[in-house]
Amino acid sequence: MTPTLENYALGRWMPGSGDKQELYDASTGEVVAIADGEGLDFAAMLDYGRRVGNPALRKMTFHERGRMIKALAFYLMERKEQFYTLSYRSGATRADSWIDIEGGIGNLFANASLRRKFPDKPFYVDGDPIGLSKGGSFMAQHLMVPKEGVAVHINAYNFPIWGMLEKIAVNLLAGMPAIVKPAVPTAYLTEAVVREIIASGILPEGALQLVVGSGIGILDHVNYQDVVTFTGSAETGRKLKAHPRIIEEAVPFNLEADSLNAAVLGPDAVPGTAEFDLFIKEVRKEMTAKAGQKCTAIRRAIVPENLVEDVQIALGKALAQTTVGHPLAEGVRMGALAGMEQVKRLREKVQQLAKNTPIVYGDLDNVQVIGGDCKVGAFISPIVLLNSEPFRFTDSHEVEAFGPVTTLMPYKSVDDAVKLANMGKGSLVCSVATNDPGVATEFALGAATHHGRILVLNQEVAKESTGHGSPLPLLIHGGPGRAGGGQEMGGMRGVEHFMQRVAIQGSPTMITAITDVYQQGAKQTERDKHPFQHYFEELTIGQTYTTHRHTVTEADITAFAQVSGDNFYAHVDATSLEGTLFTGRVAHGYYILSKAAGMFVDPRKGPVLLNYGLDECRFTKPVYPGMTIGVQLTVKEKIGQEKRDETDVAKGIVRWLVQVTDETGETVAVATILTMVKKKNQE
Amino acid sequence: MTPTLENYALGRWMPGSGDKQELYDASTGEVVAIADGEGLDFAAMLDYGRRVGNPALRKMTFHERGRMIKALAFYLMERKEQFYTLSYRSGATRADSWIDIEGGIGNLFANASLRRKFPDKPFYVDGDPIGLSKGGSFMAQHLMVPKEGVAVHINAYNFPIWGMLEKIAVNLLAGMPAIVKPAVPTAYLTEAVVREIIASGILPEGALQLVVGSGIGILDHVNYQDVVTFTGSAETGRKLKAHPRIIEEAVPFNLEADSLNAAVLGPDAVPGTAEFDLFIKEVRKEMTAKAGQKCTAIRRAIVPENLVEDVQIALGKALAQTTVGHPLAEGVRMGALAGMEQVKRLREKVQQLAKNTPIVYGDLDNVQVIGGDCKVGAFISPIVLLNSEPFRFTDSHEVEAFGPVTTLMPYKSVDDAVKLANMGKGSLVCSVATNDPGVATEFALGAATHHGRILVLNQEVAKESTGHGSPLPLLIHGGPGRAGGGQEMGGMRGVEHFMQRVAIQGSPTMITAITDVYQQGAKQTERDKHPFQHYFEELTIGQTYTTHRHTVTEADITAFAQVSGDNFYAHVDATSLEGTLFTGRVAHGYYILSKAAGMFVDPRKGPVLLNYGLDECRFTKPVYPGMTIGVQLTVKEKIGQEKRDETDVAKGIVRWLVQVTDETGETVAVATILTMVKKKNQE
Repeated sequence: MTPTLENYALGRWMPGSGDKQELYDASTGEVVAIADGEGLDFAAMLDYGRRVGNPALRKMTFHERGRMIKALAFYLMERKEQFYTLSYRSGATRADSWIDIEGGIGNLFANASLRRKFPDKPFYVDGDPIGLSKGGSFMAQHLMVPKEGVAVHINAYNFPIWGMLEKIAVNLLAGMPAIVKPAVPTAYLTEAVVREIIASGILPEGALQLVVGSGIGILDHVNYQDVVTFTGSAETGRKLKAHPRIIEEAVPFNLEADSLNAAVLGPDAVPGTAEFDLFIKEVRKEMTAKAGQKCTAIRRAIVPENLVEDVQIALGKALAQTTVGHPLAEGVRMGALAGMEQVKRLREKVQQLAKNTPIVYGDLDNVQVIGGDCKVGAFISPIVLLNSEPFRFTDSHEVEAFGPVTTLMPYKSVDDAVKLANMGKGSLVCSVATNDPGVATEFALGAATHHGRILVLNQEVAKESTGHGSPLPLLIHGGPGRAGGGQEMGGMRGVEHFMQRVAIQGSPTMITAITDVYQQGAKQTERDKHPFQHYFEELTIGQTYTTHRHTVTEADITAFAQVSGDNFYAHVDATSLEGTLFTGRVAHGYYILSKAAGMFVDPRKGPVLLNYGLDECRFTKPVYPGMTIGVQLTVKEKIGQEKRDETDVAKGIVRWLVQVTDETGETVAVATILTMVKKKNQE
Repeated sequence: MTPTLENYALGRWMPGSGDKQELYDASTGEVVAIADGEGLDFAAMLDYGRRVGNPALRKMTFHERGRMIKALAFYLMERKEQFYTLSYRSGATRADSWIDIEGGIGNLFANASLRRKFPDKPFYVDGDPIGLSKGGSFMAQHLMVPKEGVAVHINAYNFPIWGMLEKIAVNLLAGMPAIVKPAVPTAYLTEAVVREIIASGILPEGALQLVVGSGIGILDHVNYQDVVTFTGSAETGRKLKAHPRIIEEAVPFNLEADSLNAAVLGPDAVPGTAEFDLFIKEVRKEMTAKAGQKCTAIRRAIVPENLVEDVQIALGKALAQTTVGHPLAEGVRMGALAGMEQVKRLREKVQQLAKNTPIVYGDLDNVQVIGGDCKVGAFISPIVLLNSEPFRFTDSHEVEAFGPVTTLMPYKSVDDAVKLANMGKGSLVCSVATNDPGVATEFALGAATHHGRILVLNQEVAKESTGHGSPLPLLIHGGPGRAGGGQEMGGMRGVEHFMQRVAIQGSPTMITAITDVYQQGAKQTERDKHPFQHYFEELTIGQTYTTHRHTVTEADITAFAQVSGDNFYAHVDATSLEGTLFTGRVAHGYYILSKAAGMFVDPRKGPVLLNYGLDECRFTKPVYPGMTIGVQLTVKEKIGQEKRDETDVAKGIVRWLVQVTDETGETVAVATILTMVKKKNQE
């Protein structure tokens, strides 16, 4: 019996109650499953997410959320083979499925690791402190806090698993729950993964809901604390972006649409160079991986006019080796499109394109298929078109055939190549194959306004490049204009979509209390013991130690020059100072820093394990012999660390503000130093 | 004769050709000017901005743009009195006009100073380098480049000068030109300032155009490289945001709408405390400044239920001293609304509010006016309403009377105060008067999702606070939901709106070439001389100096402990190491840093003027006696500096990458150090 997919709503699995839609095997046309999302109470689902899922996630810290995502990634990775088994039914080969399944899980791992860039708190401080007054009594700091709503993700059919995981990884890390609405044709894959996620019990209740069928009406209920993301066709995306409720409630809406991505062959990358070969390989790969059904696929190959024929021949040879057929059949390198509907649409678009730009490789109606049949399976040949007048025939830049199709076009100068690449009016990604840094720079800076990502391919990266078509968790995925104008992922940048930025103004003491980070000028407290004798848990933000003072002598400077070997003339040669900024032999900056440490360090064995670095050290006033320095050491921020394993010492990083002043009270040096401090509780 | 305002389009002043609109003096009803924007060719204006203004600005560096903005600020400041003379005709007192005129010019100064946060290049590198491969051959970096279009600013009537300047300061710094469309009622003020800006000749041609009358139709021609900002009523703003062209081209649209901003009196801020007095003063000020026609004005005063009467009495007393009248009449502290239309709308809104929440101060139909007449001038009394059941009567949170009107409401707990503040469904700003850090923290973190800015008012900030109502150039201005969901200003954050983010992938050498910043792993070049003997202009990115090597001894450690005074047990006591992370006496981190300097510094007098700090220093591996260290010093980034005056030395900051390795080639320490280097060319 054909399985009926279920929706996961309000904490339970439930069938739809309306128009049951059949989902087909891309290669055989068999019915794989039935989807039905009708009858779901979207208002209740959103309310449930806001009431149940959101508070559970928002109170967790970034570190807790990250560890949760990591656990989920491991859990799914152990079960990946069952997803592969299902995935071939979408027409995907094993290699195609890898992108969807392991690429998706990889996104979870990457976002889990990203927790280390955030504090172990539910929110984070954004940017530097901002002084707002001369006297220093009034300042500000920006915070980012999780929004109080639900992330609604409306996804595309081509990557049913990656599409969900790359998005929920981010909203979960940010502290928001999600409702996922996959595209219907491949919703069975999303459902299979959600079943495992729910079964794992790793996410808190309400963190994830699923709509497997139609989601029409869901946007009628979103509000200003929710976030909507859409990946799919520009046409649908634009309609949803202008939805009255989205506009009225000012709901953040992130749109990723298809785009006519380009690859450019550099003028230096002639046949025989590594870059020429890399270019051919990349174009072939991006045409045929996932049968070209990738938002990032290469739709335009822009090559020096004198190399068009070479490229055409080399690409033809490469494509000829791309065996098309059932993804499980032996030797098959390119599977089927997602369905017959997709084949029909592709044919129409290619026919439109072919009016002015002839097909020079492949045949829309004929393809040799291994282990399949074009009558029931969505098989199609790779197609290359040639646009000899790319400034005249602009369909190549505007009409997208979503499949294994690319158009070859000539350019005269790098400037022309930039213009052609930009005629796509905004794309997700663009690449240039060149070994000439001048060409790379001219192209990249010229094309930067029009593409979300630009890849420079050359022999140096040949081994390790992740390729033109791979969006990466730490890089933004999105692009201007036709690509939708949205940005996903990008490491910490992606998290921002699910958070609200707020500027907090007040006295340094108030801002310290709110941010839990010491702000210069805030109240400092001296405590009973030297702070190096306090365990991590015992240290308090603003806790301060004021050292003894030391009068710097010429002997100090000489001794430091000797031990360091730093005999820079201004430190050691009193006769050399004419025309310099100094009025006498000046102490080394590193002497001041080292001496400060000598003054603030408690030499006894205690919870401080080691000094591990320093940030933003500035020498603000020269120190001459006879001047007297002293230090204030203040706990600025505490960041708990996870144990690597059972035997690891429980500890945390403490960031200390070091302020070195002279006898007039003026600051001569300031720095933030980092130490590792043991926890009292070693469990 | 009544002056007819002109539009500044396509590089010249030109009248409109359509429906001439009369602009009135707010206090007398006299016609001030006639505005007419019809007949302008908006498509041509946008094209002109993109073709002429954009290339001129985008090729300038941030530093050049900043100096241009600074020059403009000085130029306008010298001419401020003529703007004051015009400003009173909008009903604004001198103090109100100060906000508009000098607040606006202050924004230019602040953005001019912001140039120092950016490189002296047309674009900037965004965030940290991102490694994308194990072998280190493949990496990425995000860049921000100016968009290639025009910023279209549609502004509100209440701040015709500030509204323009706070926006163009940012687009100019980002490298984009603007078309400004002020609201018609006060467009004569914007026009007066634009006349001076154009006359100054400081901006390049095409950088600024002005539409003084109707701008209907302008959005029909924007494209994906343009940016649109809107400040004004939510209703109009939403309509424009859903404009088909905005949606179709994915044009970034930043919306700032009115909001029902709240001020909360903390439970500790009882009568007799400084915070109680500050609260009363702030509410009065925010009700009456600009006659309450501020997007950030306090519309809701949320106070502990036992203090409602005290607040009502104290606020009444304060308001009673607020003399209403012609802005030029002596003793007047509150002027007129912008016009009779605004008075009519205000009356309607207050009447709606008063159905359930009575007026407890002021009279809609009666007010004593100095030097004016309510029949022809837009004068109105300050009005306070009382909502005793604020969870029940929700109009107070949703209906905005845009004038000197506020509603008083009681709360029981801080949690309730948060809920009430958030019932405004998103606002620009919220303040809390409290001297209790616990209350401040609970309120700020609870309300953070609903407000763009939160001010904590207490005695510490009394003298220097800029107040609830002042948006500041370095803080974001905007808020979620009803406030429009947009964000302006915020220092560097504001600049992002006018730039495109792109991720660039490639080898470290390629990314170094494109970004002009040395990336670890990129090709390094050793040159003829020690880099400390090269002038600023002569140094090249990637230029490297490899030092001799040094075997660390126990004597070194002992000597360093002596000179620094740092006798931390792990450095000086070989018997103390049990249970530590160290296997023997370990060298001080600061010794490694100091010794590295001793090795890489060229002691001779040369172009290096001083060592001025270091960033991101990490000690990555303990160094024990017997280990041998060496250093590579590489030019990472060069930042030219401006001369303070004619006598100043011409110089720049050089950021160097310091890599300290041991005899196995492993890194033991890494840091970025900063030196000031003289330029060869001292002119």
